[in-house]
Amino acid sequence: MLSKPHDRLAARFEAKMTAVDMLIRTRMESRHAPRIPQVTAHLVGAGGKRLRPMLTLAAADLCGYSGDNDEKLAATVEFIHTATLLHDDVVDESSQRRGRATANLLWDNKSSILVGDYLFARSFQLMVETGSLRVLDILANASATIAEGEVLQLTAARDLATTEEIYLQVVRGKTAALFSAATEVGGVIAGAPDTQARALYEYGDALGIAFQIADDLLDFQGDSDATGKNIGDDFRERKLTLPIIKAVAQADATEREFWRRTIEKGDQQDGDLEHAMAVMERHGALNAARADAFDWANRATDSLEHLPRHPVRDLLSELADYVVSRIA
Amino acid sequence: MLSKPHDRLAARFEAKMTAVDMLIRTRMESRHAPRIPQVTAHLVGAGGKRLRPMLTLAAADLCGYSGDNDEKLAATVEFIHTATLLHDDVVDESSQRRGRATANLLWDNKSSILVGDYLFARSFQLMVETGSLRVLDILANASATIAEGEVLQLTAARDLATTEEIYLQVVRGKTAALFSAATEVGGVIAGAPDTQARALYEYGDALGIAFQIADDLLDFQGDSDATGKNIGDDFRERKLTLPIIKAVAQADATEREFWRRTIEKGDQQDGDLEHAMAVMERHGALNAARADAFDWANRATDSLEHLPRHPVRDLLSELADYVVSRIA
Repeated sequence: MLSKPHDRLAARFEAKMTAVDMLIRTRMESRHAPRIPQVTAHLVGAGGKRLRPMLTLAAADLCGYSGDNDEKLAATVEFIHTATLLHDDVVDESSQRRGRATANLLWDNKSSILVGDYLFARSFQLMVETGSLRVLDILANASATIAEGEVLQLTAARDLATTEEIYLQVVRGKTAALFSAATEVGGVIAGAPDTQARALYEYGDALGIAFQIADDLLDFQGDSDATGKNIGDDFRERKLTLPIIKAVAQADATEREFWRRTIEKGDQQDGDLEHAMAVMERHGALNAARADAFDWANRATDSLEHLPRHPVRDLLSELADYVVSRIA
Repeated sequence: MLSKPHDRLAARFEAKMTAVDMLIRTRMESRHAPRIPQVTAHLVGAGGKRLRPMLTLAAADLCGYSGDNDEKLAATVEFIHTATLLHDDVVDESSQRRGRATANLLWDNKSSILVGDYLFARSFQLMVETGSLRVLDILANASATIAEGEVLQLTAARDLATTEEIYLQVVRGKTAALFSAATEVGGVIAGAPDTQARALYEYGDALGIAFQIADDLLDFQGDSDATGKNIGDDFRERKLTLPIIKAVAQADATEREFWRRTIEKGDQQDGDLEHAMAVMERHGALNAARADAFDWANRATDSLEHLPRHPVRDLLSELADYVVSRIA
């Protein structure tokens, strides 16, 4: 999805990413329970963009790091991500992930829950090995934000009273908290001064939010070949994405009834998706969400100003632009 | 269950346990997701013996600790325990816990999974606050052993090829790893020398194993009023407990067929429980398991010799005896 700047980051960190992959492979082994590497190999083998571990390596490099704790932290971040995917697929009752059957479908929900717990524990062991209490603090806080956001999403889902503030909290849990932790720990392990660590946090946070809002918009305008999503998937799954939240906030009585039927009750008919898009267009909800995404991407780029001039800084800046170029 | 020594520990640490309870109550709050305190209050409110946090306080006291990080670690240990209970109840599809409906029944599996994740993250934040990397290392390793043991239990369950070695690994995951971490971190936070920390680990490990084997035996001989379990519950749930593993190891062809039918296939008939008990009795499997439990309780007591003379040491010794007195 993030082909260009992402590919260049991948090329730049190829050697380190090989080391990270090796670390992931070694640490997901289990002497006693072969089910564990089976499940994780299925998920890790499916690829994925490995964006989060790459963000950690990039942040460390940008701050002049030359050790190998960045690899441990990159693997940590990928383990946390994989653990949340395993639990998410159970919670969402998903059957497909990265174009393959999900672990909960191939094995069972029990394996996904427990192997997810195992990966959390493994990630925790890896970060302890870095010996940095500050890194541990950042990742502990991110873990809490992630879990809290997931619970919030569970209770706020399909509730038309969901505000943009709640939406942001959910998005931080779903995406931005791990992005911001990934970049911040890269800086911290490099011994970057507080202003730089803070800037890296801000960059990851804003990038994650821009990424998620763009994803919300692609549900209504995307090219399914390029995104791998079908237009209207989120709508059919009754997800309260940002454009819908904005449209609901401006809805008259008839429109409220429409959203209540399609999202809250899930009673959808032919033509509802087109009607939803027309209503959102009429209220400027799609354009407003698009403007928000660009705003967050700009915040990401702006925060990079507090960081040293560096080729990686340019790549991170391009990455922020790229995330929203998909909805331009 | 552990009424006498446990009650005396509870009396001795009453003030500290009040502080621990307060910490648990404060830290399970969530600014954003009210579902979290609902679920946790249900479980925490149901009581339970609070044995694990008490072991941490006892170990710290025994090693002369006078700060309050022991309270944070006690709350940490209880959070980890509560998180595993939430996930276990989903995995086991349980409907009752501590005499009340389980969270997965009252809310749903999704809430139990995600609130469990939240409690893991919270426990992690709490232990980071102690600033001790060694404590973090111990608890990270315990978390991995717990999750690995749970996965192993999933795949080894109902498999007659399960050996006593695998059984021990499962028991460490289920019970002993958190007991041993609870006692060891108490010593470590007190700055105890390595031999003492090691002895505390051994005590917790052996106590947990003795406890679990005693629990296995109570399924065949317990007084259901005192234990809260009905005779044969484990057998009906087709659990490969230690006495059965020992009997299977000595089974002739006819007995093997019996175990295959009742445990592997779950095709149980009237009289099977009585027959199972007769077969175990014939092979001395119940007595051998009982001897193992006493052996582990003795190891627990022996390990205390490396620790300072102290009234709490006597209480811990009595606790080990008490755990197996139920099956004497």
